[in-house]
Amino acid sequence: MSGSERVWNARQKNREQRLARAALALGDKLQGKIAPAAQLADLLYAVLEPGDRVCVEGNNQKQADFLAKGLASLDPARVNGLHMLFSVLALPEHLDVFEKGIADRLDFSFSGPQAGRLAKLASAGKLNIGAIHTYLELFGRYFVDLTPRVALVAAQAADRHGNLYTGPNTEDTPAIAEATAFSSGIVIAQVNEIVDELPRVDIPADWVGFAIKAPTPHYIEPLFTRDPAQISEIQVLMAMMAIKGIYAEYGVQRLNHGIGFDTAAIELILPTYAESLGLRGKICKHWALNPHPALIPAIEAGFVESIHSFGSELGMEDYIRARPDVFFVGPDGSMRSNRAFSQTAGHYGCDMFIGSTLQIDLQGNSSTATLGRIAGFGGAPNMGADARGRRHASDAWLKAGAQARAGRNTIPRGQKLVVQTVETFREHMQPAFVEKLDAWQLGEQARMPIPPVMIYGDDVTHILTEEGIANLLLCRSDEEREQAIRGVAGYTAVGLGRDKRMVENLRDRGVIRRAEDMGIDKRMATRDLLAAKNMKDLVRASGGLYNPPKRFRNW
Amino acid sequence: MSGSERVWNARQKNREQRLARAALALGDKLQGKIAPAAQLADLLYAVLEPGDRVCVEGNNQKQADFLAKGLASLDPARVNGLHMLFSVLALPEHLDVFEKGIADRLDFSFSGPQAGRLAKLASAGKLNIGAIHTYLELFGRYFVDLTPRVALVAAQAADRHGNLYTGPNTEDTPAIAEATAFSSGIVIAQVNEIVDELPRVDIPADWVGFAIKAPTPHYIEPLFTRDPAQISEIQVLMAMMAIKGIYAEYGVQRLNHGIGFDTAAIELILPTYAESLGLRGKICKHWALNPHPALIPAIEAGFVESIHSFGSELGMEDYIRARPDVFFVGPDGSMRSNRAFSQTAGHYGCDMFIGSTLQIDLQGNSSTATLGRIAGFGGAPNMGADARGRRHASDAWLKAGAQARAGRNTIPRGQKLVVQTVETFREHMQPAFVEKLDAWQLGEQARMPIPPVMIYGDDVTHILTEEGIANLLLCRSDEEREQAIRGVAGYTAVGLGRDKRMVENLRDRGVIRRAEDMGIDKRMATRDLLAAKNMKDLVRASGGLYNPPKRFRNW
Repeated sequence: MSGSERVWNARQKNREQRLARAALALGDKLQGKIAPAAQLADLLYAVLEPGDRVCVEGNNQKQADFLAKGLASLDPARVNGLHMLFSVLALPEHLDVFEKGIADRLDFSFSGPQAGRLAKLASAGKLNIGAIHTYLELFGRYFVDLTPRVALVAAQAADRHGNLYTGPNTEDTPAIAEATAFSSGIVIAQVNEIVDELPRVDIPADWVGFAIKAPTPHYIEPLFTRDPAQISEIQVLMAMMAIKGIYAEYGVQRLNHGIGFDTAAIELILPTYAESLGLRGKICKHWALNPHPALIPAIEAGFVESIHSFGSELGMEDYIRARPDVFFVGPDGSMRSNRAFSQTAGHYGCDMFIGSTLQIDLQGNSSTATLGRIAGFGGAPNMGADARGRRHASDAWLKAGAQARAGRNTIPRGQKLVVQTVETFREHMQPAFVEKLDAWQLGEQARMPIPPVMIYGDDVTHILTEEGIANLLLCRSDEEREQAIRGVAGYTAVGLGRDKRMVENLRDRGVIRRAEDMGIDKRMATRDLLAAKNMKDLVRASGGLYNPPKRFRNW
Repeated sequence: MSGSERVWNARQKNREQRLARAALALGDKLQGKIAPAAQLADLLYAVLEPGDRVCVEGNNQKQADFLAKGLASLDPARVNGLHMLFSVLALPEHLDVFEKGIADRLDFSFSGPQAGRLAKLASAGKLNIGAIHTYLELFGRYFVDLTPRVALVAAQAADRHGNLYTGPNTEDTPAIAEATAFSSGIVIAQVNEIVDELPRVDIPADWVGFAIKAPTPHYIEPLFTRDPAQISEIQVLMAMMAIKGIYAEYGVQRLNHGIGFDTAAIELILPTYAESLGLRGKICKHWALNPHPALIPAIEAGFVESIHSFGSELGMEDYIRARPDVFFVGPDGSMRSNRAFSQTAGHYGCDMFIGSTLQIDLQGNSSTATLGRIAGFGGAPNMGADARGRRHASDAWLKAGAQARAGRNTIPRGQKLVVQTVETFREHMQPAFVEKLDAWQLGEQARMPIPPVMIYGDDVTHILTEEGIANLLLCRSDEEREQAIRGVAGYTAVGLGRDKRMVENLRDRGVIRRAEDMGIDKRMATRDLLAAKNMKDLVRASGGLYNPPKRFRNW
């Protein structure tokens, strides 16, 4: 094949055709790059072609909901065969496109609220799932083999040129927009307002094809808000063990917390319990974390030096603005989050990831995938994996690596601390420890090539339950590992199946540590340790700057 | 400590003071954000404070050389104790700041040309090295605990507002500018020109403190250009083995190539040898790669669907502009590279990394660190590590994972192909295979906590030499692994120390494969297979679009 015969700018030419169709369809209703909301369907028909790979910005928090609705309202006779890309499949409209036959292929990261319906649609043959990804992996593929042709994103505001201001909820917009705009794709942004001058530019107008003022502001989910009133005394006990048995033990200064009440409890006893152990300034200084309201008391108490965030959190805007030494804020005073960089920070810049899960097997593999629900894993696989490309040392990383390699003839290397925290029984008395993960059966049902595991056992370093801590770094065989896990699995069938002598031996060696082995007085594990006991306390701790969404206000 | 007593905006206030000092020092010579080159020292004295963490943009290609020179010319009595951050320590001025006592601490990724001098300065106590990083790791830390206070970056052009156009050499600028601008830091950009209207905006003016037109355009190193005339027939043979024994065997479609003649040889026999094996469309479709001139013939032959680049390559600008279906170009027609996203793509979106090294030990650990040279590793650790957070499957990844886990009772998981390619003897007849890496001794000399390993043996899947391929995935014990490595180590001491029976057994099992085992006729391994035999051939293959730098022109 000779180079001179081949067309090398097909995508560019095709982009021009799409833009020309849009100009024709919208006529003088299109002002520069600003299109009216009423013309959304016309714009989408003009810009889309069957079979397109389309990224709809669905994030943990921010949703391009107006554009998603518009897409789901199209006529499948005119637009079909789309290949959809979502970070988070959160809205009904995200799945409506499959149900209606507008789209038939899906790649994504997380589908929390839609997990059940997604599984049903998949088994009904309404869609083919390419793969479940961790966020950063999906972004990486946007630049390799999943580059979007059209991206539908959301921002706080646009100016008349099409520059975008995302405000604190920057999230995934820069990654999506860059991959699309620089591959002859088209970026369409819904914005809450069109203004003469933006507080700052987050996405340059050159990267944006069209901006539309949506009839209502884009939806934002307050996903990381946990009411301290719902934290149990078991969770306080587990938080104490985490701090004394892991954070202090390794001197963990840079970390990420997964979402949930278990980690909220840890955040809330930093100013009380960790302070009483003299740990301020020694642990929890740098975070890759959304602005968790539960962290306010620890910030105010001087534990926290810096927080870089994946996204924002509803109600935290004023607090963040008033704490620019801690959060990443722009010259305009409002935060810029960025999931791509925060995930990079979480992977390479943190010494520990701690998070909850639903099921753990005897090898330590864990998954939130349960039967009939294709939930995805979000950021956990990226942050809950040993970052084997990491080359800088820290005390925590070196200690974990040394424990894993003690007595082995291998070159020294550090290791990331990956902690899974679960109560032995979860809701409805379902055991958290199982012989075989539901992920095996789900994987078969959904015809996945391998079971969907959230965190692999060989990346997990510690399992923390109300029974104690199993330090898997110290296990020297698969059998020891299995007994260490059984040893903290309490009264579950897996726990009852333990080899008592071996478990006692592991305890003698410090592989398993109970609360009393760490010198923790269980009687201290009461809600009195929580630096904030309810939402109102959090508001008070923030000096009135935190403004929780209505549904969290009960006063 | 009560929140109301603490100052929470010290960095913001301090930023305002620095900007006020700059305004005072420059007076009406400062026009908006545009400062004159003659005032650089005044600006730096005004903006810098002793002890600052300062990032100087030194990349693989693009250098903020004017600003680096300016920094190195300051009076150490006024500016000192700086903590320097560089992706690449490439220019003499990058080390002058330590020699002169302006800076005393260093974190970086790569120091190729300055590796020897760096080692000397380190052992003379002129600087403390925090750590050597892989690029993406360093970027991650910019958002955690190595956030720059001042960043000195380079761009092609600025407009009068301070918006920056980086052109194809975007490289690290977005990552550096974002971390600095959103932590109350100050970004200073040197630009080649100041224009009324930019071709596009790469960095918004809101993120930029000052822009200066430098007296000469910023330096760019053509780092990825390899003259095909220098490729040997041994390298052609090794390239044939790579293609038939690894690329075809696993069906590798998404990949990164390290820098050097070994991989250039592979690129140059794609249109000949790989074509003759019917592999077009089956391998090498998607790349995370700088625009290697050696890849031009394969692009023209229709092998390549997409390339996302870390940076650009001098002379490739017009070719890239004419191939927008392949490269990531903006609406303005010129490329946007981005090291952060391309490294993410290389880590998570590629099935294979192949690169050269200087030394490999008996466990497969490899390093480019040699005595007296602290060279750093660039992107290799990130791309040459199993991406354990990856969750999407591909045939290549699944096959590698299955080989690694065959016969083991473990949950299925894929694995990245990480190939180290070396001739058994390198320059000056130094053996590439050693009992113990020089990295051990270098690590001790430089007081590093662990030896500086580029790629760890347990991440390496294949070692390729002129003797054949050792597939480490198939090894079932440390002893087998050692013998597999000895088995391709030829006449080095390590190779001669092999257990002949065991090596023959490994060959019978396909763990070691010689050229003849793969059905490769060594007589075919001549330079005739190269689709371009010299620089002129590359220019011709590009239809005259590739414009090599002068030093590569010998006609």
